Amino acid sequence: MDHPPASPYLPAERILLGPGPSPVPQRVLRALAAPTLGHLDPQYLAIMDHTCAMLREVFRTKNPLTFPVSGTGMAGMECVAVNLLEPGDEAIVCVNGVFGTRMKDVMERCGATVHAVEAAWGDVIALEQIRAALDAHPHTKLVGVVHAETSTGAHQPLEGWAELVHARGALLAVDAVTSLGGHELRVDDWGIDAVYSGTQKCLSCPPGLSPVSFGPRALAAMDARKSKVRSWYLDVSMLRKYYTGGGGGGRVYHHTAPINMTYALHEALTIVLEEGLDARIERHAQMHRRLRAGLEAMGLRYIPQRSLHSLNCIGLPAGADDAGVRRRLLEEYGIEIGAGLGPMAGKAWRIGLMGHGSTVRNVDLVLTALRTILG
Amino acid sequence: MDHPPASPYLPAERILLGPGPSPVPQRVLRALAAPTLGHLDPQYLAIMDHTCAMLREVFRTKNPLTFPVSGTGMAGMECVAVNLLEPGDEAIVCVNGVFGTRMKDVMERCGATVHAVEAAWGDVIALEQIRAALDAHPHTKLVGVVHAETSTGAHQPLEGWAELVHARGALLAVDAVTSLGGHELRVDDWGIDAVYSGTQKCLSCPPGLSPVSFGPRALAAMDARKSKVRSWYLDVSMLRKYYTGGGGGGRVYHHTAPINMTYALHEALTIVLEEGLDARIERHAQMHRRLRAGLEAMGLRYIPQRSLHSLNCIGLPAGADDAGVRRRLLEEYGIEIGAGLGPMAGKAWRIGLMGHGSTVRNVDLVLTALRTILG
Repeated sequence: MDHPPASPYLPAERILLGPGPSPVPQRVLRALAAPTLGHLDPQYLAIMDHTCAMLREVFRTKNPLTFPVSGTGMAGMECVAVNLLEPGDEAIVCVNGVFGTRMKDVMERCGATVHAVEAAWGDVIALEQIRAALDAHPHTKLVGVVHAETSTGAHQPLEGWAELVHARGALLAVDAVTSLGGHELRVDDWGIDAVYSGTQKCLSCPPGLSPVSFGPRALAAMDARKSKVRSWYLDVSMLRKYYTGGGGGGRVYHHTAPINMTYALHEALTIVLEEGLDARIERHAQMHRRLRAGLEAMGLRYIPQRSLHSLNCIGLPAGADDAGVRRRLLEEYGIEIGAGLGPMAGKAWRIGLMGHGSTVRNVDLVLTALRTILG
Repeated sequence: MDHPPASPYLPAERILLGPGPSPVPQRVLRALAAPTLGHLDPQYLAIMDHTCAMLREVFRTKNPLTFPVSGTGMAGMECVAVNLLEPGDEAIVCVNGVFGTRMKDVMERCGATVHAVEAAWGDVIALEQIRAALDAHPHTKLVGVVHAETSTGAHQPLEGWAELVHARGALLAVDAVTSLGGHELRVDDWGIDAVYSGTQKCLSCPPGLSPVSFGPRALAAMDARKSKVRSWYLDVSMLRKYYTGGGGGGRVYHHTAPINMTYALHEALTIVLEEGLDARIERHAQMHRRLRAGLEAMGLRYIPQRSLHSLNCIGLPAGADDAGVRRRLLEEYGIEIGAGLGPMAGKAWRIGLMGHGSTVRNVDLVLTALRTILG
């Protein structure tokens, strides 16, 4: 072996203020390390059922088909795409950052024709643009949009979207990876048909699962498919028999679920509901305002029109050494922040205040550290 | 919420002697609970690099492209299929159990035409059958075979397979989910072009990652693709930039890896290499013989022609109550064994002796428990 051994026991205790993963509470790490059960053990099925019930509360939905996909956030995006689209379908995707760009790519791989509706990186998409795109492409089956664009920090409003999209006979699919548990997200009230998220953002659980939820319109679209889903691993027609097969003999084995990650997600959701979703969302708003006031007082500028509370994307100050500043934050303070992605590489920093990481202590520390390093 | 709360802290400490997951050592659970790092943190990248180096040792390969896919074993199967096959391709798949049946389905979803070579469940496939299939389908691009069929306990010999398959210009893809770390598996010596496994079998790590390895012929086939890989999440042309991009600026972010699961796999592989691969394989052989002698002395019969050491598939004794016996094992002894799958449902039990679970203590206990319950 060429590599020096590294100890997985003793990673540094970073303060994770980047675009995710976010800091994981000790309670969640302890749950992660509980003894492994079999994936068909009645005890495990009870934990999984309860995890799905809590996910419904956090998504604010009654959708029975709400469960954690056995992969990270991008697996959730792919799960939504492969189940709802097939060759011959048309989709409209909002592209104003890395994740919208990816959504278009993922949906094209399903054999669909995808029409991009674009905005500048950092801007949000106007509902009028969707109306025009639906006028131009009246056979559109699905409109995909990123609620919280992790690459730019833009917070996409979704008011009125479902009414418009449903009136044209299409489905609304939403990427809520960086908003679930930190921003208002009302799956049922907003008429969202399919939504996916990640565990490692505002839920403050390690990465490895992707919560998804599908509403009745999405189920009807799946039932009307003419071809098999292109991914076996993510085929909801089989997954639903495992996740919603009922408590008794109705469950059918599909794949071995990531048992210990389910324990961790269960504990992370318990913490979210103990705090209360409204209180948690308000905490994210307050910490964002506190950080924003401090950054703007230092002369730093937010890039997005309408910033997320969970992710703060700011322009690099003139003359700052991008990698050098981030390295000093990491080495001297143990603080991770994110670099710019794609066209923003070298031009932006991304400071995440997600879940367990969104605290006065962290906001004031990162402001102090930045003031010290930037001089 | 409709469900009673369940505690993810306090699952029962089962003795997992089913088809996987296998018992996880406390050292691995402890590693799993180490503080979460960012997926681009230099410390994490060192742990990931070292994990991949250890995976090469355990696969007995020098393939640079050896890494854990961010999903469970079936994601590994899908990763091999989607990257090596595209519409217009032909494949031959050996079907003699659940996982061969699934491999055919997964490969068909890639747009390939798949020819099944069949044997009865419990039997293995003869090399002559592959020769005949290659004669009948001379444009075959890939031959897929399950080394360790978890549904039947059959141990597929692979001697001479690569020579034949390569002589016809095809690739050899192997499912080693239930053999890696418990059975002889020599990826380079045996000429295997693509192989996938799971963490929750003979490696005794929780489920959630799927180790894969691709050799030079497989890489050449990927480079010669005419169409994009159907799965974005599993597209090796992008994944390889993250996993083998080198230590410096060559790495490109793809998705957020399951950080804590990587810690666990690192520790599980460390344990495998401390024991020594040869010694571990020999232990699995010895424990299998010990269990087999005990079961046969009770009049129980093995179903496969050629049994795996890691999984023992036996016929139900006449008059035994399948679910009742398994429930008593679980409730009275805390022992999980597996039911029969597919056509073997109600007719077979599957006793796994995998990794940390393959011990004298467990063999003698399960024999005693079965003797007591069967009376």
